[in-house]
Amino acid sequence: MEKHVVIIGGGIGGIATAYNLRKLDKNLKVTIVSNKPYFGFTPAFPHLALGWRRFEDITIPLAPLLPRFNIGFINEAAESIDPKSNKVKLRSGKEIEYDYLVIATGPKLVFGAEGQEENSSSVCTAEHAMETNRKLQEFYQNPGPVVIGAIPGVSCFGPAYEFAFMLNHELVKRNIRHKVPITYVTSEPYIGHLGLGGVGPSRRMMEDLFAEKDIKYITNVKVTKIEKDRVVYEDLDGNSQELEAKFTMFMPRFQGPEVVASAGDEVANPMNKMVIVNRCFQNPTYRNIYGVGVVTAIPPVEKTPIPTGAPKTGQMIEGMAMAVALNIINDIHNSPDRYAPTLAAICIADMGKEAAGFIANPVIPPRAWVKTKKAKWVHYLKTAFEKYFLWKVRRGDIAPWFEEKALELFLHLKPAEPCKDCEGAPGSRC
Amino acid sequence: MEKHVVIIGGGIGGIATAYNLRKLDKNLKVTIVSNKPYFGFTPAFPHLALGWRRFEDITIPLAPLLPRFNIGFINEAAESIDPKSNKVKLRSGKEIEYDYLVIATGPKLVFGAEGQEENSSSVCTAEHAMETNRKLQEFYQNPGPVVIGAIPGVSCFGPAYEFAFMLNHELVKRNIRHKVPITYVTSEPYIGHLGLGGVGPSRRMMEDLFAEKDIKYITNVKVTKIEKDRVVYEDLDGNSQELEAKFTMFMPRFQGPEVVASAGDEVANPMNKMVIVNRCFQNPTYRNIYGVGVVTAIPPVEKTPIPTGAPKTGQMIEGMAMAVALNIINDIHNSPDRYAPTLAAICIADMGKEAAGFIANPVIPPRAWVKTKKAKWVHYLKTAFEKYFLWKVRRGDIAPWFEEKALELFLHLKPAEPCKDCEGAPGSRC
Amino acid sequence: MEKHVVIIGGGIGGIATAYNLRKLDKNLKVTIVSNKPYFGFTPAFPHLALGWRRFEDITIPLAPLLPRFNIGFINEAAESIDPKSNKVKLRSGKEIEYDYLVIATGPKLVFGAEGQEENSSSVCTAEHAMETNRKLQEFYQNPGPVVIGAIPGVSCFGPAYEFAFMLNHELVKRNIRHKVPITYVTSEPYIGHLGLGGVGPSRRMMEDLFAEKDIKYITNVKVTKIEKDRVVYEDLDGNSQELEAKFTMFMPRFQGPEVVASAGDEVANPMNKMVIVNRCFQNPTYRNIYGVGVVTAIPPVEKTPIPTGAPKTGQMIEGMAMAVALNIINDIHNSPDRYAPTLAAICIADMGKEAAGFIANPVIPPRAWVKTKKAKWVHYLKTAFEKYFLWKVRRGDIAPWFEEKALELFLHLKPAEPCKDCEGAPGSRC
Repeated sequence: MEKHVVIIGGGIGGIATAYNLRKLDKNLKVTIVSNKPYFGFTPAFPHLALGWRRFEDITIPLAPLLPRFNIGFINEAAESIDPKSNKVKLRSGKEIEYDYLVIATGPKLVFGAEGQEENSSSVCTAEHAMETNRKLQEFYQNPGPVVIGAIPGVSCFGPAYEFAFMLNHELVKRNIRHKVPITYVTSEPYIGHLGLGGVGPSRRMMEDLFAEKDIKYITNVKVTKIEKDRVVYEDLDGNSQELEAKFTMFMPRFQGPEVVASAGDEVANPMNKMVIVNRCFQNPTYRNIYGVGVVTAIPPVEKTPIPTGAPKTGQMIEGMAMAVALNIINDIHNSPDRYAPTLAAICIADMGKEAAGFIANPVIPPRAWVKTKKAKWVHYLKTAFEKYFLWKVRRGDIAPWFEEKALELFLHLKPAEPCKDCEGAPGSRC
Repeated sequence: MEKHVVIIGGGIGGIATAYNLRKLDKNLKVTIVSNKPYFGFTPAFPHLALGWRRFEDITIPLAPLLPRFNIGFINEAAESIDPKSNKVKLRSGKEIEYDYLVIATGPKLVFGAEGQEENSSSVCTAEHAMETNRKLQEFYQNPGPVVIGAIPGVSCFGPAYEFAFMLNHELVKRNIRHKVPITYVTSEPYIGHLGLGGVGPSRRMMEDLFAEKDIKYITNVKVTKIEKDRVVYEDLDGNSQELEAKFTMFMPRFQGPEVVASAGDEVANPMNKMVIVNRCFQNPTYRNIYGVGVVTAIPPVEKTPIPTGAPKTGQMIEGMAMAVALNIINDIHNSPDRYAPTLAAICIADMGKEAAGFIANPVIPPRAWVKTKKAKWVHYLKTAFEKYFLWKVRRGDIAPWFEEKALELFLHLKPAEPCKDCEGAPGSRC
Repeated sequence: MEKHVVIIGGGIGGIATAYNLRKLDKNLKVTIVSNKPYFGFTPAFPHLALGWRRFEDITIPLAPLLPRFNIGFINEAAESIDPKSNKVKLRSGKEIEYDYLVIATGPKLVFGAEGQEENSSSVCTAEHAMETNRKLQEFYQNPGPVVIGAIPGVSCFGPAYEFAFMLNHELVKRNIRHKVPITYVTSEPYIGHLGLGGVGPSRRMMEDLFAEKDIKYITNVKVTKIEKDRVVYEDLDGNSQELEAKFTMFMPRFQGPEVVASAGDEVANPMNKMVIVNRCFQNPTYRNIYGVGVVTAIPPVEKTPIPTGAPKTGQMIEGMAMAVALNIINDIHNSPDRYAPTLAAICIADMGKEAAGFIANPVIPPRAWVKTKKAKWVHYLKTAFEKYFLWKVRRGDIAPWFEEKALELFLHLKPAEPCKDCEGAPGSRC
């Protein structure tokens, strides 16, 4: 009988898994359930916030797209999962049965500081980014101090750095930079930590970049409160201090959304409601449930004085999507072969005319190698990658052979590798 | 009736203001009063001290020069200013009446550490530099430890760095460097601070340069006493320490000279006797008095544990001279337009074969941008600029159109910009 | 009567002195006494340990070599020296009389941490390096944490850095680097100190390199105990901590060997049994005894919290061999001219595909200049130098004219210079 794979989420993780499954098996029934009508290229949301991209530049409507590749699309929120009866219940009440379930919802955003949701901006969704753009238009008319940063528990710091650098660039272009003191306030123990314990000399590189761009920084603190005109933070000794701010952008914490929580404690990590997975990104209890992307529970790279988490970057998510697709297909065909993503992180922080790139391979130390580079061509590389990725999504193939070849040839990177023993924490060695 | 502008001082500030006025108004009566018979290119005084330039290479006699551009020259010290009756009294007792007065005297040097004037060297005037050169000739015969640095309250650190690097270069050339431990002792909180709160990654750059050149450094201290063979300094806890020294060069503090003080507390800042000016470098009380150059009272960039001040570099002084000339001409013609200098600092510390350059734009943070560069071509640039500036002085035009174009084209810098509201601290935003 | 120079030691120092003597005087009787049958190129022992060189690649048998240059060779251990009767006693009981004695034995290795000799590896002799290679083959099968470093009192840190970088490179090549946390534990106050008080910006350079290669470091500690599976170290407060380790490589302390001690306290420094020498590397008491190489007593560059010593690098040893040969020949010919080595240190730490090079000129500060460079070509330079040096040894001329020219031309370095006053600590100025 034909198997049915249901994927919740139509972002990078969901789309990549669907396309990989389709590529591996022409006849498999694949359905994407998503509350959003479009695919959005998340790494370009800061660009959307700054007006450097339009919404239509970096999103693709899913309804006309997915049927072309014989992938079902239900544009509705998934409300709950019943892992025992293999069913997903939609908001409308409708139930879908699955043989395999891939949870790729992306995170629920937790604006953990008092007043953060009302008073601060975000670039985590396309809608937030567009709202941020509206706020910035007003701000440009009447500029003042800017505070950008990350609250405790954040795992995704890259966009905060990127946004700080990009806003700096925009303000210089608008010739109002000298009216805008910019401060970066973070839960990281030092700048350049990135939730990764640093990537090679990333600390020194960021310190130099911040000095060069005249961005001040306050590290190792808990932002507790964000008001209309100030940011309050607490240091490790519990002393409270505040900064004046006319515009703020703070990264929220990520959690698993309610639909994951609904599946119970064996699917949702009780701590953060993210999907519990093993090395092969399969749930250890319900072995037909998989997790892909930011919604999966990966342990932090290292313990920090103020809690931080490990980011899940595009390259890592593509690796998960590759491994999960291979694992589902192997399971269907009763093959014992399993795959685990290698979890090498490629992060590129755009800065307007140039960009800073980091590769940590693998994300979890000890690392075989790291690379860091600040250059103009890295900026163009990031832009080119955006166009390339959107082209891949339109074309229905997320892992073309030449990409794999290029990664192997130039970086000796494979997104996923055979794994003899799937049991163990994601990212630990097979 | 023809207006009379009297300028006290024949250095970069005075000459530049006079030339700008002449350029803007062919018929204005302009008189320079200076106790020195020559124009001296201050940034090359360290080179004079090391014997890399002769006195005649970097100075131009004013008596034959100024009349060619229809600028009066009185080679006499100005003794006092009576702002109420618009008169300047000269040492000879002669009085000159002015419609506008530009104070561009340069600083009075305050050798604030005990014994500094007798036992230490200076490169702040051509005469001091030549005396320093004589002392160095003796030193080379019998070398030993060298201490270079800055006492508390110094605002001009560049020449101390430059002199340390240049002396190092000279000692290497003379093959006696291994007999000369060099130590840099400063009131700056860290090296590379420069009275500017640093310029981008200037701290790291200077730390690397000092390590490379084997120059030790002691920062954040007050030099209290300079003897023939030792330097005594005090740390923040008041503990005294000393260093052996066979040759020393210490930057003095800058104050306004007596002639400024004579004008009373509404012209001379009671703290340091420097000229009180607004954003447009006009005295707020006597609005026909202007200040240009090092003699103007600019607030420090930031408070430091041991007091330091903000330097006024050549580019800043050219900006002041441009703004002040425009403001006087506009005032004469009853135009309400006023200008303020943008105060972007370009500092180049020569090191013999290479040089370290810093641009802070603007000097007062937040900064739109900064640039730092260490290279051989920066050394040649500094040398070329010296020849170019002296050529401009001989030619009678300090702000030729192509210079303005070049600054705008390559650095997006304008020396002065229209200012709608002149009231406010110099350097603050119009 | 023909004079007889006896040289104890057939390493870089002994061979270089012998060849220089032969070059300066065709008829002098020169005898090398060594317990080893071969010359070994010490700087390549880490390469031997990693299997990047074979034993025969970097060693040359002395018995067939030395007679070609009319240099006697006695392949036997020297047991004692009687400086009063000018005799060296060999292990066999045989005695050799000398007119001049050059002690160039190299060091006695002191494995000062408990268990170091049994449980740790070494690259200080060819035999140790080959044993280390055998241990590494096992380790590759079953990898785990690696700890590399230096115990208190070490003077030669370069090979520890080099070995850490090279092992990292080998592990990356073998695709097992991600299974091997590497930690560098040292008595140096910071990494990049190298027993030299740093070489220009070597600290920053090493911190960046360690970050890039994901090598952790613990500095300013005493390693007290090395067990099969752990390393125990003590910080300055006496607190003990330990690190898990599956493979360790620790540099031992260097002392003078027993044969030096046997010559009594006027030849052997009572502290470390190394040869007491003056600036000209002559023993101040027995003036026909000279020291060359690692066995000479040179004071540390600076006092460090945990004791460290100054390294004696290849270039320094070549300088000593040059000066000592000139001094002996001058003494024989009753010329008052004497020479002292300039003691400029050239260190190159190979890292596999690239290398980090440091030049400190001179080793003892103040330094005329330093150079640091990390590049691929430095790796090739080191490899080329190895081949070149071995070619020089085979050819019988250790200081060809073109080498001297090249050093002078490109680095303004001379290995030895005339010295008017030999009395004074080695490395101090004549």
